[in-house]
Amino acid sequence: MKICEATDADRDAVWNIFHEVVAPGDTYAFDPAISREDALGYWFRLGTHTYVAKLGGLKPSSLKPAARVVGTYILRPNQPGGGSHVANAAFMVAPDARGQGIGRAMGEHCLTEARRLGFRAMQFNFVLSTNKSAVHLWQDLGFKIVGTLPGAFRHPEKDYIDVYVMYRSLLEDQA
Amino acid sequence: MKICEATDADRDAVWNIFHEVVAPGDTYAFDPAISREDALGYWFRLGTHTYVAKLGGLKPSSLKPAARVVGTYILRPNQPGGGSHVANAAFMVAPDARGQGIGRAMGEHCLTEARRLGFRAMQFNFVLSTNKSAVHLWQDLGFKIVGTLPGAFRHPEKDYIDVYVMYRSLLEDQA
Repeated sequence: MKICEATDADRDAVWNIFHEVVAPGDTYAFDPAISREDALGYWFRLGTHTYVAKLGGLKPSSLKPAARVVGTYILRPNQPGGGSHVANAAFMVAPDARGQGIGRAMGEHCLTEARRLGFRAMQFNFVLSTNKSAVHLWQDLGFKIVGTLPGAFRHPEKDYIDVYVMYRSLLEDQA
Repeated sequence: MKICEATDADRDAVWNIFHEVVAPGDTYAFDPAISREDALGYWFRLGTHTYVAKLGGLKPSSLKPAARVVGTYILRPNQPGGGSHVANAAFMVAPDARGQGIGRAMGEHCLTEARRLGFRAMQFNFVLSTNKSAVHLWQDLGFKIVGTLPGAFRHPEKDYIDVYVMYRSLLEDQA
């Protein structure tokens, strides 16, 4: 797996993943009907670092890259001004590529990138309490639940569910 | 005091307050050097309800309004999609008009407006722990500290300080 900054050539693949992840409306607080333009405008916004995870490589028989984008994440300041030393990040894995450690690899890559960019901490504002695999992954990577928002997400099947705010310092290794 | 939706005629007054409040960099996570255009673009963004609090009224000797804008607040969904039933709000009072209950009056007005607009809860994402009067006001109005973000704000004099996430339901009176 290779993780690198996204380029314009990745936009179609990123939109495909974004759309597949967001359309069910059960993991992210995005409008499930968000347009391609709005989604990519958000994911590639000025001041946001956008990454893709690719599986595969050059086909021996071809000069064209056969690597496939299987995940994407963004990294940016969570707040401007006096809050800009805290990073925020969001992650998406192609539904048919789950269970291969792509989320974890992107999470580890993201922590390294955030330190490289000089961030002192990282915050996730909106982790659904029902998304057990995400909560456990972030805890594994050193994040703590620092807040619980009661009923802050309307799940299409589970009605109003709690949402976690998760946070970790980047100043020393806590993982 | 009169609180009403802001109009284009209030933009100059809103910018004056915004600039005065944000420039010291000690209460809000905005770039202290934010431009008028960016500030008003944010405060009057599509999908954001913008209000002003005015003191005074018609001068007896004149048909021109003498009311002065002494505060402003915004009300909007804190998240899109499955999170859009939770409101977010932000408040600013002109520095020379503090201590007159303008923040409290706007807070009460905001809770009423949020209920009228159908929100089920309200969340403040970034209340500085050093801003005791704000914390106490929101607690008085029924908000609870549901999360603490360690060192999430760089205060110009106090270095890195904790920030609170505050939350209250709007479904029943908790105040």
